[in-house]
Amino acid sequence: MSPAAELGPNAGLIDVPGSRRALLTPALVLDLDKFEANIEGLARICGAVGLRMRPHAKTHKCSEIAKRQVAAGAVGVCCATLHEAEAMIAAGIEGVLITSPVVGAARLGRLAKLAARAGRFKVVVDNPANLRDLAEAVRTSGAALEVLVDIDVGMQRTGVATEDAVLGLAGMIADAPGLTYRGVQAYSGMVQHINDLAGRRRVYGKQLARLAEIIAALGGAGLPPAIVTGGGTGSLVIDIEAGPFTEHQTGSYIFMDVEYNQVEMPISGAAPFQTSLLVQCSVVSNNADAFVTINGGYKTFATDGPKPVLAEAGLAGGAYDRFGDEHGKIELPPGAEKPQLGDAISLITPHCDPTVNLHDYLHCVRGDRLVDIWPIDARGVL
Amino acid sequence: MSPAAELGPNAGLIDVPGSRRALLTPALVLDLDKFEANIEGLARICGAVGLRMRPHAKTHKCSEIAKRQVAAGAVGVCCATLHEAEAMIAAGIEGVLITSPVVGAARLGRLAKLAARAGRFKVVVDNPANLRDLAEAVRTSGAALEVLVDIDVGMQRTGVATEDAVLGLAGMIADAPGLTYRGVQAYSGMVQHINDLAGRRRVYGKQLARLAEIIAALGGAGLPPAIVTGGGTGSLVIDIEAGPFTEHQTGSYIFMDVEYNQVEMPISGAAPFQTSLLVQCSVVSNNADAFVTINGGYKTFATDGPKPVLAEAGLAGGAYDRFGDEHGKIELPPGAEKPQLGDAISLITPHCDPTVNLHDYLHCVRGDRLVDIWPIDARGVL
Repeated sequence: MSPAAELGPNAGLIDVPGSRRALLTPALVLDLDKFEANIEGLARICGAVGLRMRPHAKTHKCSEIAKRQVAAGAVGVCCATLHEAEAMIAAGIEGVLITSPVVGAARLGRLAKLAARAGRFKVVVDNPANLRDLAEAVRTSGAALEVLVDIDVGMQRTGVATEDAVLGLAGMIADAPGLTYRGVQAYSGMVQHINDLAGRRRVYGKQLARLAEIIAALGGAGLPPAIVTGGGTGSLVIDIEAGPFTEHQTGSYIFMDVEYNQVEMPISGAAPFQTSLLVQCSVVSNNADAFVTINGGYKTFATDGPKPVLAEAGLAGGAYDRFGDEHGKIELPPGAEKPQLGDAISLITPHCDPTVNLHDYLHCVRGDRLVDIWPIDARGVL
Repeated sequence: MSPAAELGPNAGLIDVPGSRRALLTPALVLDLDKFEANIEGLARICGAVGLRMRPHAKTHKCSEIAKRQVAAGAVGVCCATLHEAEAMIAAGIEGVLITSPVVGAARLGRLAKLAARAGRFKVVVDNPANLRDLAEAVRTSGAALEVLVDIDVGMQRTGVATEDAVLGLAGMIADAPGLTYRGVQAYSGMVQHINDLAGRRRVYGKQLARLAEIIAALGGAGLPPAIVTGGGTGSLVIDIEAGPFTEHQTGSYIFMDVEYNQVEMPISGAAPFQTSLLVQCSVVSNNADAFVTINGGYKTFATDGPKPVLAEAGLAGGAYDRFGDEHGKIELPPGAEKPQLGDAISLITPHCDPTVNLHDYLHCVRGDRLVDIWPIDARGVL
């Protein structure tokens, strides 16, 4: 493949005046001005309280974005999967932390190989048998690996919940040749989307108190965690005040989406992040009176959450509805002029992470111009 | 990339005894025996009534499967997008029909290039302005292109609904230099999932009667359609009896899924197709008592329809629940032995088309052995 082919069918539009509206669609569009403001915003917020940043790359799956996060001061990035970690490390990112247990012989073999060429590479464990397998895989390869205990503070997805289990695992890591004990992770996914701040404080406050107890117990046992990692975009407003974290895993802040735009998070009194990510579609049929059909459906937008929201000024008050795998319906607001065939229609993504995962490229724009294309090089499920 | 790398991380397991349970997961798994029975089943059903097959490739996005459909007698495949058509034609498939209007200068330019190297290539139109653009794009390139009128029989997604509009477009195609008028398409997506057959007959019967009237009018105007294309897996049982179709666009029959397994479709008295497609995941955490966590979530399974259904005999009666982007929760049935870390868990896909689109490879198995890997080479949204 030529470099142009690797950037997809819109590569020829880079730097062409007015090229944003000429994109072959559906196209994931990144407003660079807003994106950069979000990157700077998080650095300012975390910097003010001495919280390190290790943003979650599961949101973007894009090593170009990871590079910009590191350039803004991040100590590395988080990854949800081994495949994401492989893509980030291949692009030269150091300080990758895999935030889910890496399980199974095939995956541990790949992890050990990866560890041999990665800097400050970290994984979490939540099970003694998995820890033994991990130690054995790394011992065989001779690679260095930092390990954290995954603590379950309420979600019950991964992690260990009891103080005894945390202390037991931490001790085992500290004793394992080839592994370095570095601390703990406590991620509470479900609280991120408690939209009202008071409700979020109530639920999350109890979890953080529990985490503080466990950290104290680790200290008492001679295993104080150098790293306490966790947090998301929704909990940031609480984590910067009261959280026991040394570093933060915020992910969605770079893009924002319909879901996170509903989460109350006043930081310095205002919502700190802007919607930088859109999906641009095109009108492909307009024979009906009250709506038009666009080329964006189940394969274009995540469907686990709310529907996409129109970002076109001329269609404000209109609504997107799902219309099959490849199609969406745009119900026109009263009095709106019906869009023409081929017209560009931009929408805010419903849930940014799984929406990004459906696409192969981020089309970076400034104003009305396409200025760059970044491959979503860690896309996929493996 | 080496050929092995192009087949993903499980390439080394091909033909290894017992390799099915050793797959790096999440892995899309295709049971070849059942898949082949489905391919043969459709050929038998359509052959018995003289209905040609042009199966929809949007379901599988895999040129290897398209080749097998053609080998079983299909006259070509349908594609939902230009990108799918490009992948199929690059693999040597003839008789590709794009079933949605191809709109916009960028896309029409690509279409004209593609037409120059494709055999029996067809597209649909539902708009005079689009038809003029299409004719101009093809005229400039000198390529041959067959065109069908897209008729809306009730879904209002694409297509023209009035007899006058159909006749007008058909006449315009017949008159356009470089374009060949071949007939009509009428696809009724919404009826496919009316689960009870009587209800489906009621709604769809009216649509087919309307279609028959339009076909008669075309004949009367000297524009009899050589091709009448449409139909899906859910309407097949009706289309083989009464339908005015000359060819059928059945797609999901090759895989089946949780949704289609609920659709009543007795053909020769029995459900004609078997579930050949599964997603194999692994247990990544099992610290809770009543459930385990697997590595399959919003990025692994489509979320527009029902939830995945467990296909593991030992877990019958258990249930999958969504647990975030990369994770699922398997609630254990009473008395079931708790799976171990790393254990393989297989699930029936909720909605096969958008689930396949999340994956890069089909892992083909016979019994307990991986025997081949087919890239999903038309994956993506463009």
